[in-house]
Amino acid sequence: MTPSDKALVPFVSVDQMMQIVHKIGLTRMFTALADAIAEDFLRWQDFDKTPRVAAHSNVGVIELMPTADNSHYAFKYVNGHPKNTAEGLQTVTAFGVLADVTTGYPLLLSEMTLLTALRTAAMSALAAKHLAPKDARVMAMIGNGAQSEFQCLAMQALVGIDAVRLFDSDPAASRKCAANLQGRGLTVTICDTPEAACEGAQILTTCTADKRNARVLTDNMVGAGVHVNAIGGDCPGKTELAEAILHRASIFVEYPPQTRIEGEIQQLAADHPVTEFWQVLAGREPGRRDARQITLFDSVGFAIEDFSALRVVHRLARETGLYQPLDLLADPDDPRDLFGMLMRAKAPAAA
Amino acid sequence: MTPSDKALVPFVSVDQMMQIVHKIGLTRMFTALADAIAEDFLRWQDFDKTPRVAAHSNVGVIELMPTADNSHYAFKYVNGHPKNTAEGLQTVTAFGVLADVTTGYPLLLSEMTLLTALRTAAMSALAAKHLAPKDARVMAMIGNGAQSEFQCLAMQALVGIDAVRLFDSDPAASRKCAANLQGRGLTVTICDTPEAACEGAQILTTCTADKRNARVLTDNMVGAGVHVNAIGGDCPGKTELAEAILHRASIFVEYPPQTRIEGEIQQLAADHPVTEFWQVLAGREPGRRDARQITLFDSVGFAIEDFSALRVVHRLARETGLYQPLDLLADPDDPRDLFGMLMRAKAPAAA
Repeated sequence: MTPSDKALVPFVSVDQMMQIVHKIGLTRMFTALADAIAEDFLRWQDFDKTPRVAAHSNVGVIELMPTADNSHYAFKYVNGHPKNTAEGLQTVTAFGVLADVTTGYPLLLSEMTLLTALRTAAMSALAAKHLAPKDARVMAMIGNGAQSEFQCLAMQALVGIDAVRLFDSDPAASRKCAANLQGRGLTVTICDTPEAACEGAQILTTCTADKRNARVLTDNMVGAGVHVNAIGGDCPGKTELAEAILHRASIFVEYPPQTRIEGEIQQLAADHPVTEFWQVLAGREPGRRDARQITLFDSVGFAIEDFSALRVVHRLARETGLYQPLDLLADPDDPRDLFGMLMRAKAPAAA
Repeated sequence: MTPSDKALVPFVSVDQMMQIVHKIGLTRMFTALADAIAEDFLRWQDFDKTPRVAAHSNVGVIELMPTADNSHYAFKYVNGHPKNTAEGLQTVTAFGVLADVTTGYPLLLSEMTLLTALRTAAMSALAAKHLAPKDARVMAMIGNGAQSEFQCLAMQALVGIDAVRLFDSDPAASRKCAANLQGRGLTVTICDTPEAACEGAQILTTCTADKRNARVLTDNMVGAGVHVNAIGGDCPGKTELAEAILHRASIFVEYPPQTRIEGEIQQLAADHPVTEFWQVLAGREPGRRDARQITLFDSVGFAIEDFSALRVVHRLARETGLYQPLDLLADPDDPRDLFGMLMRAKAPAAA
């Protein structure tokens, strides 16, 4: 039995996502993602926004991140299990769905492990474009795990950095990151300490995976005028920055109700002033005001970014043909006749 | 490039779900689902429970229904778009995921349009087994859409009814239902009015799709001693029963915080007494107490029922081999080397 078109949902597998990236190129992918995020952030009020729905266990978290505008609905399934790495599994895996609000039918099912890495880096770079010093050329990359190369290359593509200074508590991670960045036009330096990584850097990116309140950056490591791009503090009890840094910084966030629970600012009072980044994009709030200001993008990842990313993939999958149809939806000839469809499917082998 | 086992998630398509049902038989399927629901309801306290996360538009709703115990996590995506039928689409489509809490990795992706119809009927029958009069043989089935045959056959299989009296505002729907039920040991009568359908019935099942406060059952249609199985009132502003019925009935619900928003009891005061059905299963609260009592199962569908259903399908898919592996998760050799995996996938056609 061949399902009808209505029953088939385009599916982008991991392999197809990788082929899409190679087909259009990494720089164009980062640009497309950042453009789509900016476009959607500029119509912030069009979206149903809700903090993610998280199921915590003592070893990790599984989250659903839904959002919708008038025409499209999207959600992402994403887990965070720091101990997975030791078992040969990914800390973060994800997949997501884009759906049509008018019919409720899914339009796309996509892998999002790679896509999340790509959109997180595009989001960081979009924020840094507006918040980092204009002449930023050097980035410290602290935490050299799965996200690190994406961060470095998106900052190169969209912000124009030309050097990265790597630190990881595991030197093998830094060597892996450096090897992957070879030949891409970035000067790469592996550093022995986080302090050394921060030397001369205008952008400090933290992206570590420990599920606890850490001090990846201490107060003395953050000099005047830098932009801090804090990625790894993204759930309750997991932060990367010493609290003192937060009191010296102008703090920009995606969606305050979520960031106050999950971000670095969980360390602060609930009424500590923060700026919604979309307001900067919209020109309603200033971004960086002066050369000595410390800016902090306290990024936890927000559902609209995934919405934007799924929009981009939905378009690219159709343009490239890199997807496969999935028999995910029941589609009886008469919509009320689900049971008849079931009965007529009897013994398909003999049909 | 062939993904490794860890990257592959078993997927049960609509066609495979139908083959599973035929392989094990509809009665055994209903029994397996009701048994799994009862098993999970009996350990109610083990579950993280949250009202579903709903995105409403003016034409329908898209919902995520997550729940988890210590070992497994499940969620269902489900839409409800009553106007879809007129466009040749399903009112309700659904799919779901079962995942491992310890790793966060999905264990199963499954169609759930059919599975939801099956588990909803199994849930109704499980409730009726404990709440309907012991000698119930006749059921009124009001609303003869996609769910109706499943309701009739689950009540036959698990409660022992032998006759159904059908009513739908569209006679073609009743004819479709009657035709599908032919030859299955049920005496089927198509009725011209809902009043006629209720005559002599000990169980009154309502399952209509109008998205409004309707009066599918009026007060005078519900006599002493009947069991009302109200399925169709399942979102804010959508109810099927006249309020007077609710004041005469002993009301049983799945999860009060959700039912008070979505069920028939949205018509009542927030403190109107209701009984959680799991407490009846556990012997902590009485079910039906006497022959003249009106019992009402105000069913809106709860995430644990989907959890149970996905557990059953996960087992049956493995037992029957009726599933396909889906390349949904990125799985680099070194979990931290997501970028390296992406780069090595370049030009797979030439590999």
